[in-house]
Formats: sequence, C-alpha cells, structure tokens
Amino acid sequence: MHILILGAAGMLGRKLTAAITGGALAHDRLTLADVVAPPTVPGARSVAVNLTDPGATEALIAGRPGLIFHLAAIVSGEAEADLAKGYAVNLDASRALFDAIAAIPGYCPRVVFASSLAVFGAPFPKVIPDDFHLTPRTSYGTQKAMTELLLSDYSRRGLLDGVALRLPTICIRPGAPNRAASGFYSSILREPLNGLPATLPVRDSLRHWFASPRAATGFFLRAAAIETGLLGPSRALSMPGLSASIAEMIEALRRVAGQAAVDLIHYAPDPVIQAIVEPWAEACAATRARALGFTAETSFDEIIRIYLEDDRPDLTPRS
Amino acid sequence: MHILILGAAGMLGRKLTAAITGGALAHDRLTLADVVAPPTVPGARSVAVNLTDPGATEALIAGRPGLIFHLAAIVSGEAEADLAKGYAVNLDASRALFDAIAAIPGYCPRVVFASSLAVFGAPFPKVIPDDFHLTPRTSYGTQKAMTELLLSDYSRRGLLDGVALRLPTICIRPGAPNRAASGFYSSILREPLNGLPATLPVRDSLRHWFASPRAATGFFLRAAAIETGLLGPSRALSMPGLSASIAEMIEALRRVAGQAAVDLIHYAPDPVIQAIVEPWAEACAATRARALGFTAETSFDEIIRIYLEDDRPDLTPRS
Repeated sequence: MHILILGAAGMLGRKLTAAITGGALAHDRLTLADVVAPPTVPGARSVAVNLTDPGATEALIAGRPGLIFHLAAIVSGEAEADLAKGYAVNLDASRALFDAIAAIPGYCPRVVFASSLAVFGAPFPKVIPDDFHLTPRTSYGTQKAMTELLLSDYSRRGLLDGVALRLPTICIRPGAPNRAASGFYSSILREPLNGLPATLPVRDSLRHWFASPRAATGFFLRAAAIETGLLGPSRALSMPGLSASIAEMIEALRRVAGQAAVDLIHYAPDPVIQAIVEPWAEACAATRARALGFTAETSFDEIIRIYLEDDRPDLTPRS
Repeated sequence: MHILILGAAGMLGRKLTAAITGGALAHDRLTLADVVAPPTVPGARSVAVNLTDPGATEALIAGRPGLIFHLAAIVSGEAEADLAKGYAVNLDASRALFDAIAAIPGYCPRVVFASSLAVFGAPFPKVIPDDFHLTPRTSYGTQKAMTELLLSDYSRRGLLDGVALRLPTICIRPGAPNRAASGFYSSILREPLNGLPATLPVRDSLRHWFASPRAATGFFLRAAAIETGLLGPSRALSMPGLSASIAEMIEALRRVAGQAAVDLIHYAPDPVIQAIVEPWAEACAATRARALGFTAETSFDEIIRIYLEDDRPDLTPRS
C-alpha cells in the first residue's frame, strides 16, 4: 500500500505520519506533501507542493496511492480574511485532487478528508445530531461543506472512496500559543502544565466539544479501515468527542496538576473572542461514527494525561 | 431597474419574461440571456451566451443589473450523464457569476437562483422540514446544494443579495412530452386535455410535490421583492406546493375534463422510471417561504385550470 498525506507538515499531519511510520498502517511507500516540505522521516518521501498549482495533484497521484489523507487547508481566520485564497485552497485544490483521481480509469483510492464542525452553524440543539442541516457561518465552513458534498457525489459515482471527518476542537494542541480565536482552549491547560501563566478570555461556564490530538490521529486511522459501504449516501461523519465546560476543564487540571497549576490561569475577558466562540457547538451525537468504531476521550483528565505523555516538552527540570 | 434573466429561453424563463414585460416588475431595461438567443420581446435585449465561456458573466453584468434571475442549468439527466459538463454549467458558471459580481466594488444586486428539491435525498419524512439535511443523490442535486452554500456565503459577506428557491416539480409543463423521468407527471394530464393518449408508467398511489408554472413564476417575482434581512444565514428556501398522489391527479382530471379524458390514460408499468421516481419527496413544509408570502396551488383542479388558461394550444377545435 502506498499512502499519501496532504498537509503532512501540520500538527495533525505530523502525528499521523508518526503513527503510520510507527506501524499503525501497513505500507510500502509513504509520501508526505505540504506547501512547505514536511519534516523528513525514514522511509518516506517529503514533497513541497502548492496544491493550487496546475498539475500539482496529478503529479502527487502519479504513483497511484491507494490511501490518501487530505488534511491540507488554510484555517478559518485566513479563509475569512482572503475570500479567493480560501476557495482556491479549501475547495478548488480538493476538487482538483478528486478530478485527477477520477480521470484515471479503474483507480479508486480511499480518500480521508479532514472536514470540520464549522459546516454547522448556530442556533444549535444541545447535542447536534448526525443529520443536522448544513448552515455554515463562515467561508471556511462553507468550503468544507461544499467539499463534503463533492466527496459524497464522487464516491457515489465510484470515482473515489471518500470519508469526510468533522473534527471536534483539538485539545491540548502542543507548541506555542497561536492567535486563533480557539487557541485559549489549549493554552489555559498547556501553559500551566508547563509552569507558565495563561489567560482565560471568556466565561468559564462556556461548553464546547473536544478531542485530543491522539484521538484525532485515531479517527484518521479508523477512517482508512472502515467498510465504506456502510456509510450510505453521505460520506461525512461527525466525530465523537468530549463535551466539557471551561470550569470542568480547569477542575481536571486541578486534579491532574494541582492548585498551583490552576493559579496560573488569569481571567481577562475579551469581548471579541467571546463573541466568536460563544455560538460554537456544545456537543455532537456522533452516532454513526461511534457505531463505526470511532472513539474519543471520556474525561478531561485523560486529555490532559495524553498531553503529558505525548507532547509536554522536557524543558523544565522536574523533581 | 435593469433586470437580467439567465436561462431566459427555458419554459420558466419565458413565462417569467412574459410576466415582467406584462408589468409584474417595474424596470427600465431587460436583458434576456441563454445559450441559444431567447425569443425577442419588445423592449428587451436578447443575448446568446454560453455562461461557461471565460468572461461571459462579466460582460452580462457590465450594465450593473440590480436584479438577476439565474435559471440557467442543465437538467439532472444530463448532469448525471456528463460529470464535467454538469459541474461546469451548474456550479462553475454560477460561481463565475457570483465572483464577477463580487469583483465590482459597491455592487450588490439581488440574485434569485433556481435551486431544486434534488438538494435533498431519501429517506424522507412525510413532510420535509425547512432544516432537513442536504443529502443529494444525484450530481445535479449536489451542484445545486453547493451553489446554494456559495450563494449564502457571498450574501453573508455582503457581496451579493441572494435567494435560492427549491422548486417543486412543475406541473403541467406545456409542450411536447419529453424524455425526463418526471415527464409523465405532466403528460398524463396534458395529453388527455389535448385529446391525446398518455402512458402512466408507475403505480397511482405514488405521492409527490407540485406547483404550476404560474406559481413558479410567482415564486421568482416574490423572491425579487422580499426583505432578505429576514432570511438569516441560509438563503435557500423550500418553495410551497401541493402534495398529491397520481390517483388524486387523475380524479382532478375527471372532475375538470370528464371520464373521456381519464380513459385516454393507459397504465404501462416501467420499472426503470418507477425506480427513479419512487424515492422522490412527497411534501415540503415550506414554513419559511409561506411566512415570507410565497404561495402555490391548493388543489389539482386549480393546476389543471391554470394549464387550460395559460398553455393549452388552440389546435383542437372545441365545440
């Protein structure tokens, strides 16, 4: 099996690469592609490619990968700021990939596409059912929804074998704080776990939908293995996760790392961030995905321990 | 007001043109465009244009029409048979139009887009609610759903002022029988009303969702006038209609035109057509559209009378 990962230089792409090279999926070839060359990995080929360039996707699939993970995208903030770039990267490059696959007779690879809860828009029920209507409130969510529809249509026609995964907010993201509106969800835990102060910009009664980077990696691996004949006409699956309020996240931090860690969190309300995240989804039923064997964490203690095991830097000497 | 109709040579385009030139909408300019030049109409400009040609949409909106009716499309059978053509005409040409509009600073026309119930797919509830999920089962339905999402996103961004109308099956279509799978829904009434035999290829207990050509014209006119600020984030509206079984349609024919007309219908089951139309929608709630003043017929007698008033050819001398 030849495996291709698009968007391999991103956080999830690197974790997926590590899982595959660690033996999670049998393969004889592994190609890693991103707009900047992904870190080189033994046994893998690393390619720098802009998927919006003409012919880029044709070249990437010339080796007929039987399994393609498509994680390449620009994030919601950038897609909102740059209309043309958002549609070019998040929709057109995906379509170019699907069309390049469709143009090869008899070639029907599994294509696992990273979609997003952003295909849904408020007002939400407490728990979003699998068949909730598509009402994106951002250009990013619109582009993901359009690509999901295209993936389902091409799969129905037998041109490819697609699965789209609507990912929860990934928490705890490793690395430095970023400027994404959702960044605080990770940093209020990550920074105190590393002995650093953190800022909470929103009310702690806010509830949202989470999975760890390890769970997300598991989603992609599971999507590579499922019997897609069971999916029916929609190839998009809302992924399982953990619904938690910020107060519950902080209580988990207290249990795992103690009051000293919690004391590093400083509450400084930011109305701009509050307005962005306030209408976000609280929970998904993810009934179809759970029945297909997709699993996520069931407590925030577990999400914190996964960060400690997988990602916490060894910078701070510990007694 | 300058009005532009794309797809003006089609059945609905011609009826909409007649309504507008008859005074239904105030205008000082009217441009009619289609891939073949629409019939010339006094006071209107008729243009033959292929919307998939580069620059075609830019040229059409150079005169800054304040109201654009976008009915141009290829039908579902052709979109299913020709993947590339379906996406080029039904998605890319719409997007080219929206992008051409977006590129003009300060220009934000009302764009009324002809969508379809085909954005939905079985299994259906008895009555499809406005917020039913998008699960198209055809490439045509996928293209319409993707265009709806794009229209909503561009409207949200203030680049245009869009309304998408999900039309019921239009009945009674005037003219000769065509080879569309749905064609019999019109021909089993139209042909007997014209003294000609007709074939019913499916069971008469089958129920479906209908509106007359006159009602459809009314939908487009209403969509030009509504306060779009009331629409919220989704600019797509399921249109009202009449839910009727074929047996009910035939009873209405009996009431309006007598047993002799009904006797012209010959039942000849066609498993291919039966398989295509069997899963079609039985009814839509159309709650939002009704609240916004969209109206359709409430009996099939009325739909038949509208055909007699508006469309029946004067070919057969009547005593």
